[in-house]
Amino acid sequence: MGAAMLSDLMTQILIPVCAVVGIAFSLIQWMIVSRVKVSTEKQSPAAAAKDKNGFTDSLIEEEEGINDHSVVQKCAEIQNAISEGATSFLFTEYQYVGIFMVAFAVLIFLFLGSVEGFSTKSQACTYDSTRMCKPALATAAFSTIAFLLGGVTSVVSGFLGMKIATYANARTTLEARKGVGKAFITAFRSGAVMGFLLAANGLLVLYITINLFKLYYGNDWEGLFESITGYGLGGSSMALFGRVGGGIYTKAADVGADLVGKVERNIPEDDPRNPAVIADNVGDNVGDIAGMGSDLFGSYAESSCAALVIASISSFGINHDFTAMLYPLLISSMGILVCLLTTLVATDFFEIKAVKDIEPTLKRQLIISTILMTVGIAIVSWVALPSSFTIFNFGVQKEVKNWQLFLCVCVGLWAGLIIGFVTEYYTSNAYSPVQDVADSCRTGAATNVIFGLALGYKSVIVPIFAIAIGIFVSFSFAAMYGIAVAALGMLSTIATGLAIDAYGPISDNAGGIAEMAGMSHRIRERTDALDAAGNTTAAIGKGFAIGSAALVSLALFGAFVSRAEILVVDVLTPKVFIGLLVGAMLPYWFSAMTMKSVGKAALSMVEEVRRQFNTIPGLMEGTARPDYATCVKISTDASLREMIPPGALVMLTPLIVGIFFGVETLSGVLAGSLVSGVQIAISASNTGGAWDNAKKYIEAGASEHARTLGPKGSDAHKAAVIGDTVGDPLKDTSGPSLNILIKLMAVESLVFAPFFATHGGILFKIL
Amino acid sequence: MGAAMLSDLMTQILIPVCAVVGIAFSLIQWMIVSRVKVSTEKQSPAAAAKDKNGFTDSLIEEEEGINDHSVVQKCAEIQNAISEGATSFLFTEYQYVGIFMVAFAVLIFLFLGSVEGFSTKSQACTYDSTRMCKPALATAAFSTIAFLLGGVTSVVSGFLGMKIATYANARTTLEARKGVGKAFITAFRSGAVMGFLLAANGLLVLYITINLFKLYYGNDWEGLFESITGYGLGGSSMALFGRVGGGIYTKAADVGADLVGKVERNIPEDDPRNPAVIADNVGDNVGDIAGMGSDLFGSYAESSCAALVIASISSFGINHDFTAMLYPLLISSMGILVCLLTTLVATDFFEIKAVKDIEPTLKRQLIISTILMTVGIAIVSWVALPSSFTIFNFGVQKEVKNWQLFLCVCVGLWAGLIIGFVTEYYTSNAYSPVQDVADSCRTGAATNVIFGLALGYKSVIVPIFAIAIGIFVSFSFAAMYGIAVAALGMLSTIATGLAIDAYGPISDNAGGIAEMAGMSHRIRERTDALDAAGNTTAAIGKGFAIGSAALVSLALFGAFVSRAEILVVDVLTPKVFIGLLVGAMLPYWFSAMTMKSVGKAALSMVEEVRRQFNTIPGLMEGTARPDYATCVKISTDASLREMIPPGALVMLTPLIVGIFFGVETLSGVLAGSLVSGVQIAISASNTGGAWDNAKKYIEAGASEHARTLGPKGSDAHKAAVIGDTVGDPLKDTSGPSLNILIKLMAVESLVFAPFFATHGGILFKIL
Repeated sequence: MGAAMLSDLMTQILIPVCAVVGIAFSLIQWMIVSRVKVSTEKQSPAAAAKDKNGFTDSLIEEEEGINDHSVVQKCAEIQNAISEGATSFLFTEYQYVGIFMVAFAVLIFLFLGSVEGFSTKSQACTYDSTRMCKPALATAAFSTIAFLLGGVTSVVSGFLGMKIATYANARTTLEARKGVGKAFITAFRSGAVMGFLLAANGLLVLYITINLFKLYYGNDWEGLFESITGYGLGGSSMALFGRVGGGIYTKAADVGADLVGKVERNIPEDDPRNPAVIADNVGDNVGDIAGMGSDLFGSYAESSCAALVIASISSFGINHDFTAMLYPLLISSMGILVCLLTTLVATDFFEIKAVKDIEPTLKRQLIISTILMTVGIAIVSWVALPSSFTIFNFGVQKEVKNWQLFLCVCVGLWAGLIIGFVTEYYTSNAYSPVQDVADSCRTGAATNVIFGLALGYKSVIVPIFAIAIGIFVSFSFAAMYGIAVAALGMLSTIATGLAIDAYGPISDNAGGIAEMAGMSHRIRERTDALDAAGNTTAAIGKGFAIGSAALVSLALFGAFVSRAEILVVDVLTPKVFIGLLVGAMLPYWFSAMTMKSVGKAALSMVEEVRRQFNTIPGLMEGTARPDYATCVKISTDASLREMIPPGALVMLTPLIVGIFFGVETLSGVLAGSLVSGVQIAISASNTGGAWDNAKKYIEAGASEHARTLGPKGSDAHKAAVIGDTVGDPLKDTSGPSLNILIKLMAVESLVFAPFFATHGGILFKIL
Repeated sequence: MGAAMLSDLMTQILIPVCAVVGIAFSLIQWMIVSRVKVSTEKQSPAAAAKDKNGFTDSLIEEEEGINDHSVVQKCAEIQNAISEGATSFLFTEYQYVGIFMVAFAVLIFLFLGSVEGFSTKSQACTYDSTRMCKPALATAAFSTIAFLLGGVTSVVSGFLGMKIATYANARTTLEARKGVGKAFITAFRSGAVMGFLLAANGLLVLYITINLFKLYYGNDWEGLFESITGYGLGGSSMALFGRVGGGIYTKAADVGADLVGKVERNIPEDDPRNPAVIADNVGDNVGDIAGMGSDLFGSYAESSCAALVIASISSFGINHDFTAMLYPLLISSMGILVCLLTTLVATDFFEIKAVKDIEPTLKRQLIISTILMTVGIAIVSWVALPSSFTIFNFGVQKEVKNWQLFLCVCVGLWAGLIIGFVTEYYTSNAYSPVQDVADSCRTGAATNVIFGLALGYKSVIVPIFAIAIGIFVSFSFAAMYGIAVAALGMLSTIATGLAIDAYGPISDNAGGIAEMAGMSHRIRERTDALDAAGNTTAAIGKGFAIGSAALVSLALFGAFVSRAEILVVDVLTPKVFIGLLVGAMLPYWFSAMTMKSVGKAALSMVEEVRRQFNTIPGLMEGTARPDYATCVKISTDASLREMIPPGALVMLTPLIVGIFFGVETLSGVLAGSLVSGVQIAISASNTGGAWDNAKKYIEAGASEHARTLGPKGSDAHKAAVIGDTVGDPLKDTSGPSLNILIKLMAVESLVFAPFFATHGGILFKIL
């Protein structure tokens, strides 16, 4: 077996240092972004000169309207409106989820406490009955605390992300006056602020929690890491409400604004005359940014928890090998350093000069971070792992070498890259799939929708094979621990992933602000180009989120099965098979709810926008201001009301199935929802991304083929707008929420596993 | 244990008698339908008087234009054109699939023959090694023969169905002049001709094959019924090509005709000026009728084979209890008698007088047949089963009582009824779901598509629970045999199911003929009303097909697992899990192919139709005839070319997975494609049906609400047409083909199980 090269003390130092480095880097990026002034005061000549020094190369691009201070004033106003709308929505949302959090925390405490009848005496350990472990009551209490901590961290992550994005959007617009390169770098740096802050924050909180819990648990690592899983549950349940609530908010506004604005009134996107325009821009920040931040934080927290809980009952945990035990956190720490280097390549080593450079630059970020991370994983695996160890595998200990575990992490990492590339291929308008979809608009909206759906279905094939190979390799090498670290591998470059993902909505907002501030057509073209690349990166980010969710939930599923003391999940038993069938249905039920919610909310939005156009005199002429607040209120109310049923479906299903049908059926449900949900999630995201970019392809008219379909307002373009609108809820509401569904049900089952194993399956017990 | 009350001799007599009764009844119905004359000769006064006697009550409804003989002439011409087009397409299709059949037959023979190295010596039986069984070479030869027989029966079923439908469509049109009741009864009787002919024919061929094979096999029932499974494979593989080829044909024509005709040229559906109109009507017959006939025949053949093969290794087979062994065929025989009674209720006991009676009448058919069949199953179970027996359950024999098996069949039967009702609720425009979808057209095509997709997803919930409960009950009582007989229960009323299913396309065609023959608006309204009910019944038929497919493939899966000598399919092993994940992806891959095929074919159709409108002078004015033949050719070529890749995907997947990855992974693939495919199939069918009826709801304008959305040509109606067009490939191509995918992969795995068990999994063997 042997011990790791890295001493426990060094591990204790390195992890927080890396986290702090990440936070520091994030603050530096933030300072650079904040040099772009969005204020109503005139700049002093000295300040202007200083500013110039900061951007010595700004003269190499054509600058447009940078001395027009009324534009800056307008941008500042719009930015404030968006930021206020987003803040006020998130606070309202957090009040709702706060109530839920408290109620669910009570439930966790009561259910887990009841496992041993709220006894305060030490009990024999679950996996090693010769030793004594802390009582179930302690696990109940600490799980509850971890749950609340995870929830709060998730909320803070989402909120900070939103604040950064709304801080950055107007700055991106203003920089777009200086050229596409400046605008890109501002949006990208802001994305990096969010990426590094979230990654480092998640790591730090988890690290501190483990050390604090350790003060109580001492050498009972089984109990310690079992209660840590509450952290993953907390993070993910917040993410669910964030994604669903935010997703409904943003798409109700977006669909409503588009249907009346673009289709009926023939005014451009983000036109300030459109009453839903502020709600639409607020939505980008609460849905795509805050929702996604919470989501990826949740994935990160869960994959770490899954790995830790399995490790705690493997040789790492049994031998109390602290460094090897914290291998997942060391991987994440290394990830922060690697992403830091990668980011510097985009921000400092190269500069973007033309629109066509944007997508390659973002793609290069993925490739560089993956290659560097491969080296990073090798180093961590070499220094932090003993050369040989054992991993718990459904009742038996399986021997694993350190190079095998290295391969497990790598296979996840590279599977992520493949998923990213395939997603790009299917959603970028540089390739034939999206161009074919655009071409099908020639014969109207119906063929556009048919081709788009077919594209989404087709885009599932390669990612599923990539995930399947990843699962097979990592499972064969290191059982469920292998899967968990493969998921971690995919998420190890999360800071870069989040940076390029957040870049999209920031650019989208920047375009919106440019339009609303009445800036010139050229500036809008620049932000549109940023945004088109952003659609692709958003799809890539969703691809990562879904791929990692599949691995994470499989790992959590494995941990659940181990904890529930099931040795076999046999499809050939009726209990499991009906679970599998019903589980595969859940993503459809969930999607039906979320899509219908968006549809209904969009209908009310349409009614309101139409009402305003019809009743406010001078609105179409631009002489009267629309009533933005009512539209914001419609989106807010709808999303808060409509997020409850899908949220309840996801949160209650494991409880109901576990309590009434028992752990075998619940295993089936988890496996079924996993294998079915992944497919719908990928196809929905890609279909939506493809439709959006097919529309942008026609609008941009960058090729001979594209010009035969356009211009804006042509029949083909109208058909493309319909496809884009259909895709909105698919790609931004139901699709990305589905990966939370599969993760969350798995982590919830894991947390409640002791309860289900003791008291579950009452229906079959009665029969 | 005891023996069955029914003697073997009686069983040998009863089954063919029931089949012959079914065929005779079908012929009587056909004679009644053929009394409606579609000929160019003038009727003699005597004949007219006789005809009057045949329909003494024809005066109670308003008659319109029944003396206009030029209309009859036109109808006859159109009918001939449709019939010729369909016949010529099917013959071409059969040439292609004929080549495939022969090639695949050779493959079956070689693969199965190689299991024991083409030895001609008797071998120890698989399940009872103390006894000697016929050599694998014999099983190879007889499986091949059964495969060809199944294929031919399927082809004949589809072809006869098509002939009947094209015979009936013009007759329905002509009867529509006398009133909606007359037209309904003609369409329904014609459906019954098809239903009874197929059900009785399938039963008879299977019965004769068993008896002929028994001459060779004697007491080796294990080998006998193993080779009989080839019958299911043959039936299903023909069904696949029929559904996919026919589905692409019909929807390419339909979508193409609608996109130019309704959307661009603003001419009504089925207008004779539209060049694609004949292809569209041909498509209804080759896709919906011939395809569905083959499909349901396949389901019937497979569920019988699955039940027989499991029974052969249970106490029935071991004790050579012939009557109990043929319990599945006795259930089907009883089904024919029950459906006969049920049909009489609709045709002779009651008469439809108004449009609003159509749907309730069809629904009553389902209820009556289900109630009667429950009694029928009780009788068969009582007389044909010993009071107690054992069923093979993955290595052990499980004791089952006859009343438990009765419950298994019933649970399938009633689950079918529930699925039927839920489907009706979600696809009939009498209920709020479709009305909501229609309402969403108010804000355009995008919301219509969003609401329609959400409706389809939602419609999955109850059917899945019904199937899950069915599986749980029947599995708990009688293991995989229980599942197989539950599937048989659901299909036991197949004659009635097919009758009301075939009724839809016949009415659709009748409407087309009325339009093309220039008959009055009122007649078109009557056929439209029939057709709207037909959309719902078609969706119900698809619901049955999908529900039974789920049960059938689970039973086949169970038989495969038994034959491959696997005792556990453990989700927690990587081999199985990756199979599950990839299997769940296959329906998406398949749908991507079929939808893209329809889209591409529709684009060529649109180009051609536009070309004709632009280049043929006088076409829009109705003074020149369009070139129907070119459109027919486009549909024919496209469907023949495009059916090969999806067909290859389905046929090759089990072979590749079995040979390279082995039976465990293949088990995962089968389970994954089953649980995922069922969901997509149900949601696709229902979404499409709902869109179609939402459009019809707006067109008919039967309620205050509907009138606010209409009339034809309004913006809401245009949006509804787009939804309908998107739904076409979903409900008629990819959706219904998916149930064949899941069945076919399962039955193919079963047939090749001996080969896979011996030679499979070479990739893992190398690793």
